Amino acid sequence: MKLHACFEQSRRVYLEGGRPDLKVSAREVLLSPTRRADGSCAPNDGVLVYDTSGAWGDPAFDQNSNGIPRVRENWIHERGDTEKTPSGALTGKPGKRPTQLAYARAGIITPEMEYAALRESMRAQAQENAARLPHTHHLFQHAGDGRGAIIPRQITPEFVRAQIASGRAILPANINHPEAEPMLIGRSFLVKVNANIGNSALGSDTAKELEKLRWSVKWGADTLMDLSTGPDIRKTRELILRNCPVPVGTVPIYEALERVDGKAEELSWELFKQVLIEQAQQGVDYFTIHACVKKDFLPLAAKRLTGIVSRGGAIMAKWMTAHKSENFLWKHWDELCEICATYDAAFSIGDGLRPGSVADANDAAQFAELKAQGELVKRAWAFDVQTMCEGPGHVPLHMIEKNMEHQLSWCHEAPFYTLGPVTTDIAPGYDHISSAIGAATIGWHGTAMLCYVTPKEHLGLPEREDVRTGVVTYKLAAHVADLAKGHPAAQARDNALSKARYEFRWADQFALSLDPERAREYHGQTLPQDSSLSAPFCSMCGPKFCSMRLSASTLGKTD
Amino acid sequence: MKLHACFEQSRRVYLEGGRPDLKVSAREVLLSPTRRADGSCAPNDGVLVYDTSGAWGDPAFDQNSNGIPRVRENWIHERGDTEKTPSGALTGKPGKRPTQLAYARAGIITPEMEYAALRESMRAQAQENAARLPHTHHLFQHAGDGRGAIIPRQITPEFVRAQIASGRAILPANINHPEAEPMLIGRSFLVKVNANIGNSALGSDTAKELEKLRWSVKWGADTLMDLSTGPDIRKTRELILRNCPVPVGTVPIYEALERVDGKAEELSWELFKQVLIEQAQQGVDYFTIHACVKKDFLPLAAKRLTGIVSRGGAIMAKWMTAHKSENFLWKHWDELCEICATYDAAFSIGDGLRPGSVADANDAAQFAELKAQGELVKRAWAFDVQTMCEGPGHVPLHMIEKNMEHQLSWCHEAPFYTLGPVTTDIAPGYDHISSAIGAATIGWHGTAMLCYVTPKEHLGLPEREDVRTGVVTYKLAAHVADLAKGHPAAQARDNALSKARYEFRWADQFALSLDPERAREYHGQTLPQDSSLSAPFCSMCGPKFCSMRLSASTLGKTD
Repeated sequence: MKLHACFEQSRRVYLEGGRPDLKVSAREVLLSPTRRADGSCAPNDGVLVYDTSGAWGDPAFDQNSNGIPRVRENWIHERGDTEKTPSGALTGKPGKRPTQLAYARAGIITPEMEYAALRESMRAQAQENAARLPHTHHLFQHAGDGRGAIIPRQITPEFVRAQIASGRAILPANINHPEAEPMLIGRSFLVKVNANIGNSALGSDTAKELEKLRWSVKWGADTLMDLSTGPDIRKTRELILRNCPVPVGTVPIYEALERVDGKAEELSWELFKQVLIEQAQQGVDYFTIHACVKKDFLPLAAKRLTGIVSRGGAIMAKWMTAHKSENFLWKHWDELCEICATYDAAFSIGDGLRPGSVADANDAAQFAELKAQGELVKRAWAFDVQTMCEGPGHVPLHMIEKNMEHQLSWCHEAPFYTLGPVTTDIAPGYDHISSAIGAATIGWHGTAMLCYVTPKEHLGLPEREDVRTGVVTYKLAAHVADLAKGHPAAQARDNALSKARYEFRWADQFALSLDPERAREYHGQTLPQDSSLSAPFCSMCGPKFCSMRLSASTLGKTD
Repeated sequence: MKLHACFEQSRRVYLEGGRPDLKVSAREVLLSPTRRADGSCAPNDGVLVYDTSGAWGDPAFDQNSNGIPRVRENWIHERGDTEKTPSGALTGKPGKRPTQLAYARAGIITPEMEYAALRESMRAQAQENAARLPHTHHLFQHAGDGRGAIIPRQITPEFVRAQIASGRAILPANINHPEAEPMLIGRSFLVKVNANIGNSALGSDTAKELEKLRWSVKWGADTLMDLSTGPDIRKTRELILRNCPVPVGTVPIYEALERVDGKAEELSWELFKQVLIEQAQQGVDYFTIHACVKKDFLPLAAKRLTGIVSRGGAIMAKWMTAHKSENFLWKHWDELCEICATYDAAFSIGDGLRPGSVADANDAAQFAELKAQGELVKRAWAFDVQTMCEGPGHVPLHMIEKNMEHQLSWCHEAPFYTLGPVTTDIAPGYDHISSAIGAATIGWHGTAMLCYVTPKEHLGLPEREDVRTGVVTYKLAAHVADLAKGHPAAQARDNALSKARYEFRWADQFALSLDPERAREYHGQTLPQDSSLSAPFCSMCGPKFCSMRLSASTLGKTD
């Protein structure tokens, strides 16, 4: 048995697909048996958990090797629609668009789609297996409320293909990033979480960014955005891409701005295009492009309490004001589409005018830009470019649903990818929480991916522990949304953990947690003895007042 | 100027009511001026903040004195409907029910009601004052969505009286706890937060509990529940009551169980009654009574994944099973009402069958008990006893609204007081967050008070830092709910903070935060120099990439 390289009481498993080189990585949490009142034992099945740690979670992987395995390389090669550039990067052959959207529209189920389908449904499958055994998990799951999304009971490769073909989901998979394990961003699937890494002029270094990468995917980040703005942008990104088992996004305007020494007015379409192509050839899977901050929208933002709080939005606003000209990204959108189609780099259409305070939520500037995003979605689809839209930001709780309604309607059901939203402005230091409230809510209503917010938001650059707290908090919010929308078998892990809790299997309760190490640490703070892990109570209530102990003795314990 | 004893950059102020001894304590956050681009300055008004720290926030208070001032003593005395017992406790004169509900029904606006009205509306009033001045805060507030609650633009003493008279709000105010500053629990008012303190057999001591009290009200706890189950229950409670500026709740069955050495089957109505009277005479403001865990409901709970997770519920279940008899609290409800009416101790009807896992949410056991709660509400009202109902627990996000709907309907709009709810079971160590998501949502839908959950939930007894994190997280969730339901001027603090943020008034941003110390600490971790507090950027983006800096220079800065 190969134990998992990141977590105790877990092993790395690979689910087999329809071809020998299609093996979906997953983590199985191993559980101890239930002790019955008569002294006998009933085994508990392991619980399969979606695992984004890639090779870093495989104990057989040599962590000193030069990059992680290129799991998609064969699949890309055998399609025969790509060729090498003089610099060694892959590109689509002339006239070819090697994108998952193009394949899906042509009716082709790629290995990537099959991989992603298996990955999404592993828990449902495990549940089915368990149902055949006498010692099952508690299999009950509440009916969800999908808020209009199609939530199938089984996620098949064909369903995945159809969702991608319709534009309702994307599978970010740059042909130059074969290290990335396929995953889906769409509201019919598990809600995904993005973590931001990257240095700034005032902090971080390259080795630290690689460590943040491994750390982020250990805790479950589904994609990473490299937001580096400091020195060595290209070198940092190369290290990240060659070691990253999840899709990587960037905001190319940051590197462009670095090349003109921070002078926004010196930016140009030609420079941007050059940066974009270089990054696409390195393997960036999706690009945030602030193309919808249009000149006409700036007067709307001038009336705000907090103006423009998107870095990309502020950069483009400055350029437009200096040049008295329309946003060059808007003007050159078709060229951008052609470039991205050549590498299967997806768009994440930026929301440069997202509200930066609850006062500015759902205002004219924000919604004007959202409508414009919808126009670009349609044009991107015409070029077979996979596309999602970015969303807010700061929004009071009762105004969140309106964002989702408008986005679905105006952006033609392209996946929505939001930053929180933060639901109050008065909680600096706790904005991972103020935003998790918004994130869970908008995730339930249909947002496909949530960009994490750390406790340092609004205050400074997140450090290692902030990244952990941010990712785990957002996995929590995403799971809350999955339960609410009724993703098949989302509840299996909750049930297994609650069963372990009720049976005082403390170690199992920790192992099934989103953050086993923290759960164990907190339990141990008041009861540090090893023996406490077999005690039928904890320090919160003590033995006499433990409701579960009393309850089990009164109601009888099931297994 | 008297600076606030708990927070920097703040002062203690007292809002004056209609009589000289009616002074509502509040905190004013003092702000620095806005520096305009031309070098001139525009002052910023201070922001009034609801303050629960009582005397502990007043720099003039001698912290070594024996208990805090008895702010309500005169008001209770001058009503002339109470007398002293031989032991020195106050009790209603024969035939008198000195409860705020009785007064409200008689058309009397008590000083307590006026105090609470002023306290609720202070921000709206401050906003009105500000509107008359040239250097105003940004006064905009979104229209809220009260989900059927009456949310007035001005909270008058008469409105408070009418809400109490209708049973829609309570003002917990035991005549033996004159130290408590009046406050309201009702869905037309600010959402309140309860913090649990109290020792257990395995941890804590008396001095530590007093420290937790001061700590909890510093961070904004609106009521405290003393859940002590360890030694010295009575002494601990006395220390808490004499030093507590907020209402105190208890679960009297805990002390009763201590007296029978933890043997639930040895409990009796007579013993319980004795404990209840003693606690009422000490000054406990509200009692959690698990009267609705009825014998007929136990088979419903036996089918659950996690049985009974309420301590009180499990104790009563054990007693009923041992005695094959109906819950004695249910049977003796009218006597309970008579006792509580004599002291103006309020009921918090316990939810002994609340779900302890998402699997058990909204099940037959839970809803059978909720309906029974409604019956007891009506009977309590017949005795002029102020009453609220306790609620879950563990509930998936999409099933929360149903809880509120049923509670409003079945319990005749008596205030709802919920524990979270936790929205997923897989986050031990982060359950303050998984429950803050549920708490903000149910608060928006009408829950009047939220019982905090700390990071230690399910794992152990919370320590000092856990209490801080729990209270601040729940103040956050309550404020998110206040913004959503549109409490008048809830948004003023958000606006002031966002304005400070946009103008790089870092110290003001910290001071306006729910936790100024943490905000300052996090900012300082990456930019420890004092000069960073006047810098127009932070370590997250650095100077070149600061969107707000770029935005202000592009759009112009308003003041």
